[in-house]
Amino acid sequence: MGIVLGPNNYGKAETRLVRIYRDTARHEIRDLSVTTSLRGDFAAAHVAGDQSNTLPTDSQKNTVFAYAKQVGVQQIEDYALALATHFVDDVGPVHGARVEVKEYAWQRIGIDGGGHDHSFVRSGQEVRTTAVTVAGAGTEQTVVVESGLADLVVLKSTGSEFNNFLRDRYTTLAETHDRVMATSLAVRWVYGETGVDWGASYDAIRQTLLETYATVHSLALQQTLYEMGKAVLERQPAVAEITLTAPNIHHFAVDLEPFGLENPGEVFYVADRPYGLIEATVRREADPT
Amino acid sequence: MGIVLGPNNYGKAETRLVRIYRDTARHEIRDLSVTTSLRGDFAAAHVAGDQSNTLPTDSQKNTVFAYAKQVGVQQIEDYALALATHFVDDVGPVHGARVEVKEYAWQRIGIDGGGHDHSFVRSGQEVRTTAVTVAGAGTEQTVVVESGLADLVVLKSTGSEFNNFLRDRYTTLAETHDRVMATSLAVRWVYGETGVDWGASYDAIRQTLLETYATVHSLALQQTLYEMGKAVLERQPAVAEITLTAPNIHHFAVDLEPFGLENPGEVFYVADRPYGLIEATVRREADPT
Amino acid sequence: MGIVLGPNNYGKAETRLVRIYRDTARHEIRDLSVTTSLRGDFAAAHVAGDQSNTLPTDSQKNTVFAYAKQVGVQQIEDYALALATHFVDDVGPVHGARVEVKEYAWQRIGIDGGGHDHSFVRSGQEVRTTAVTVAGAGTEQTVVVESGLADLVVLKSTGSEFNNFLRDRYTTLAETHDRVMATSLAVRWVYGETGVDWGASYDAIRQTLLETYATVHSLALQQTLYEMGKAVLERQPAVAEITLTAPNIHHFAVDLEPFGLENPGEVFYVADRPYGLIEATVRREADPT
Amino acid sequence: MGIVLGPNNYGKAETRLVRIYRDTARHEIRDLSVTTSLRGDFAAAHVAGDQSNTLPTDSQKNTVFAYAKQVGVQQIEDYALALATHFVDDVGPVHGARVEVKEYAWQRIGIDGGGHDHSFVRSGQEVRTTAVTVAGAGTEQTVVVESGLADLVVLKSTGSEFNNFLRDRYTTLAETHDRVMATSLAVRWVYGETGVDWGASYDAIRQTLLETYATVHSLALQQTLYEMGKAVLERQPAVAEITLTAPNIHHFAVDLEPFGLENPGEVFYVADRPYGLIEATVRREADPT
Repeated sequence: MGIVLGPNNYGKAETRLVRIYRDTARHEIRDLSVTTSLRGDFAAAHVAGDQSNTLPTDSQKNTVFAYAKQVGVQQIEDYALALATHFVDDVGPVHGARVEVKEYAWQRIGIDGGGHDHSFVRSGQEVRTTAVTVAGAGTEQTVVVESGLADLVVLKSTGSEFNNFLRDRYTTLAETHDRVMATSLAVRWVYGETGVDWGASYDAIRQTLLETYATVHSLALQQTLYEMGKAVLERQPAVAEITLTAPNIHHFAVDLEPFGLENPGEVFYVADRPYGLIEATVRREADPT
Repeated sequence: MGIVLGPNNYGKAETRLVRIYRDTARHEIRDLSVTTSLRGDFAAAHVAGDQSNTLPTDSQKNTVFAYAKQVGVQQIEDYALALATHFVDDVGPVHGARVEVKEYAWQRIGIDGGGHDHSFVRSGQEVRTTAVTVAGAGTEQTVVVESGLADLVVLKSTGSEFNNFLRDRYTTLAETHDRVMATSLAVRWVYGETGVDWGASYDAIRQTLLETYATVHSLALQQTLYEMGKAVLERQPAVAEITLTAPNIHHFAVDLEPFGLENPGEVFYVADRPYGLIEATVRREADPT
Repeated sequence: MGIVLGPNNYGKAETRLVRIYRDTARHEIRDLSVTTSLRGDFAAAHVAGDQSNTLPTDSQKNTVFAYAKQVGVQQIEDYALALATHFVDDVGPVHGARVEVKEYAWQRIGIDGGGHDHSFVRSGQEVRTTAVTVAGAGTEQTVVVESGLADLVVLKSTGSEFNNFLRDRYTTLAETHDRVMATSLAVRWVYGETGVDWGASYDAIRQTLLETYATVHSLALQQTLYEMGKAVLERQPAVAEITLTAPNIHHFAVDLEPFGLENPGEVFYVADRPYGLIEATVRREADPT
Repeated sequence: MGIVLGPNNYGKAETRLVRIYRDTARHEIRDLSVTTSLRGDFAAAHVAGDQSNTLPTDSQKNTVFAYAKQVGVQQIEDYALALATHFVDDVGPVHGARVEVKEYAWQRIGIDGGGHDHSFVRSGQEVRTTAVTVAGAGTEQTVVVESGLADLVVLKSTGSEFNNFLRDRYTTLAETHDRVMATSLAVRWVYGETGVDWGASYDAIRQTLLETYATVHSLALQQTLYEMGKAVLERQPAVAEITLTAPNIHHFAVDLEPFGLENPGEVFYVADRPYGLIEATVRREADPT
């Protein structure tokens, strides 16, 4: 049996781009990390070292910068759509393109109750993300927009239990009816359409995730994640599917008894590793027809 | 000439502590990283392996947790003062103690216009810090409180120049009259007293730093830092000295001309390394007497 | 249409385990990070908060430690196979288990031309990895062993070109016939069988990757990766497929002309971001029958 | 009292430089991170925004690259000495310069028992460092060379105790007569002279550190560090003083009894945080005259 090239892709990762809108004295800022990745007719590049079909990753980087001017960066989904479609439609050997964008949030520095015109401070921990994949040509062309957020760190100081779990011979964990539950959420949701008000959708989903996390009495991180995903699907018809990944950032109550002290859920040690890691997808039931 | 032990210290680094206040249904949270470091009579531990003067770092960690209950964690300065004084006063061989605390900020998850009672989300990028050093005994005891912040990332999209600088044979930099200026501030200030409303002082200093950064027209990062430090000293009589450390996060305007596009300060590449690094201390003039 | 639970899994990530073999005075050491992940009958845990099918991640961690004693850690593949099989065979609701292991390399500290019996120094940059997936029961049970390495950083100071590439309107890159080529390799290979001498296989594959990288005159990173994968498949009949992921760590020749100096490929600036990112799979041709 | 500028410095941090020696077919490689920092007559830059004394950090970066060609990079100490002396002697307003260099190690890829001419693999974990400080002019000029290493990770699987330590009311630690002791060493040594064979000195010091760590029966990390420093001073007359910083990477024996297993020092959990942190300087006794 011979040896052959399998799936392959290449691109430019983590181009750090800041786009300033300065049409008026009140500037706006977009701060992005952009990764492009192409699939297509690249067998000769691998097997024979023939680069005639290879658009350099340097050109992809240039395109990232040029498009920040040509099409602009208002919503990262629109920008990524423009880039991905360009690579597939305008660069012959490219059959599919995936453009991933991370956006870092800034807010205006507050002065005298207002926000400064052109001075900003990074805000929040979380990162807004999108990954747009365009494949194929003409009427066969498919487009998938998967947006999300990462590094949204949340904690509940009560309202979380974990008990009645399965026990085997390696189980020593005590049941708990009141624990601290904390996680750093990474969430990705697939849109079922592209005519979406991306910014409004993002804000609404973020708020739904936070509200549900806050208000659901938790019997396990799995249940909390499911409820969060379900709430998003219920309120956002444009979302087809959502996947939540959540490390369980363990907060262990410290035993203060040796020091003659009680610890009724007040003093916790925060562990780094190992950590529980829970991942779940919630989606709409397939059409039975 | 013989070989001797020089300066030495030891302690427990980065104890991750969360303290929940749950006296009412409306919980509060303090999220800290605590590092303790002791100096004293530890020559025998080094030279002869005799540990009879060595309080284990494990005991220091236990004390960090116990004090979170015994004295509580309202303001990190008070908590660090209590810990450092304890080590010096209560542990015989200890002559000096330094307690460093980092505090991570949380805010309540917003629900229906209010904040949830016991569900929180990490807020902001910056970390509040303090380093308290206590040395000596009785009336000779000295106490230094150096508080600060780290990772406060700010950016001005205009209002920053850099020109008329010194040129040598290795200088190729072009002058600029309008550039993006961004940095990640680390600031430390020494208090001249200990009877301070630490929280109010922190909030006021942070706001002064941000406001000054925003409103000073910058001729160089050095000048901006100096003005920030000066403004803090002018408004905060309790602060004796302030040191600002600021990496210059370079934003380079991308040349879009090869693509037939103009770039009037709109599209920037953000570099990682190398970066300019500026450090300056601003302080009160010494008493001439 | 209703809302339903989709794919889901959970486990314990990054349990840091050191196993010492001390049966003789000449100790041996294994230093691992172990991640377990289970799939199965966990719908009720998500949808109803019912944990009766959920083996705690804490128990998974305990099992990781217990198995380090019970079955030992000689080759990470055998250890991961034992763990994954245990979860699937012995824990009722579990239908599939994936166990990922990273191994950090140590060597004996050299003393008088020999290696010390029980003192070690971390060696090398790279990490040896495996991911074992076991699914299903009885004769239907499937086992996949995918081993690899990560963080193997290599550099060629010549013997690398990049030219005759595709040009579009965003292309400004100059062709080069002699460049520095550097990367940090992550490689994963799937074994077609399980009766393998894992350690010998790892050593041979690592050496084949390095030798091929060193000796192939490179016309592009794609071609180099393909040749590396092909060489492994040619020499290792037990390997069914291999995937190489390689960031192009760009080394840019510095223009020293402004300083009256030549730079014939001697002085380079190493960039962090963005970076080219190339990924390719090489595999055996499918059986045509 | 007025407000004044205190100590200040500025420079270019972490310029990543690779220098290839290619005079013969057998290339050599030096891989560095260089940080420059200047002190001097910079008050006007801060107080008045007057940059006429400020050599841009961009020029410092250019000098780093130019000197890699002009004076070359054989030993990092010589290279840093040349750079620091240049800034102080040739740039008027500069009164002091500190140049810090980290060097990353590479070895030739092994082929047929030899090393390849121009293909390299990163070796080892540790980083070689130097910090050269030049201050003042003419016969008053002072030069300090402080070299070192970082990230040298070592572990002893036996030959380490910790007992008879001081106990207070917060002490719960059990004594141990046989534990795993591991650390990641950062060591800096000050040379008392500049006419040193830097490379030979580095190799000898590294070997002395490792050998002493391996062979000293440890009663505490403090004692081990002291013995390591003492051994270096005894064998290296050019070294005036040495400082060792060592996090205690805790390896906790796992309690396997709940699973019916013994654990005679074989299975350990490696903790991340908190960690003990020990720092000690060893030096030559001051001349009593």
